Amino acid sequence: MSDFSLDHRLERDTLFIARQNGCQVRLMNDARYRWLVLIPEISKIRDWHDLPDKVERDILSLTKNMSGLLKKFENADKINVASLGNLVPQFHLHLIVRYENDAAWPGPVWGVGAAEPFTDEQAKAVIKMMQNLLALTS
Amino acid sequence: MSDFSLDHRLERDTLFIARQNGCQVRLMNDARYRWLVLIPEISKIRDWHDLPDKVERDILSLTKNMSGLLKKFENADKINVASLGNLVPQFHLHLIVRYENDAAWPGPVWGVGAAEPFTDEQAKAVIKMMQNLLALTS
Repeated sequence: MSDFSLDHRLERDTLFIARQNGCQVRLMNDARYRWLVLIPEISKIRDWHDLPDKVERDILSLTKNMSGLLKKFENADKINVASLGNLVPQFHLHLIVRYENDAAWPGPVWGVGAAEPFTDEQAKAVIKMMQNLLALTS
Repeated sequence: MSDFSLDHRLERDTLFIARQNGCQVRLMNDARYRWLVLIPEISKIRDWHDLPDKVERDILSLTKNMSGLLKKFENADKINVASLGNLVPQFHLHLIVRYENDAAWPGPVWGVGAAEPFTDEQAKAVIKMMQNLLALTS
């Protein structure tokens, strides 16, 4: 059994979408973006170089597949991929669909204005869309 | 022969360190940080999902190795890894050594104040340090 438990800030700021490739796939609760956060369900990983090889392969395979699918099906102008984690030590990978008319373009999304939480109905629709794309990756 | 040519903004903003794992390894010309930019020397790559598998393996192996070495030898508090590329379409991966007392902590480094170019002497020393670490990865 793993002793993984989700960081409380990730729990607070994101919504559960699915478990896939050993990761929790979560949606940043900010209706301005389509922003995934992938968290390998293992403990004590902080930096990229802490990822065991198999965990790295699994999260990157998911990242690459979802990047391509989001670009295509959501007509993204760009996909941003980033592991920062200065505030939240638990390793997590951001996968962000960007548009030339989005709230932060062309800058990075972090720290721009305040998050605008999804309504229940919006969240349900976006989570369903993401689950449908995830089903195409497996 | 490849028809790769470096994006002019990357050329302007960064200094050449080395060629390794099929990438140009360059130093962001900003003395506030120790900030690498890795650019696979192939043309027409914009997003993560555009990376051919071997190119992806090579750049990620370099990323993982350098992340661990920089954390250890430069006493980093965190390593940030990111592919954004909203302004510069040519695929490039940022690998940034972060400290809890650096100019942007705990936020991301992009768009914080103005870059402070290295003096020639500083640049030479940091490039040499990076070349020494790169030699340990191969």
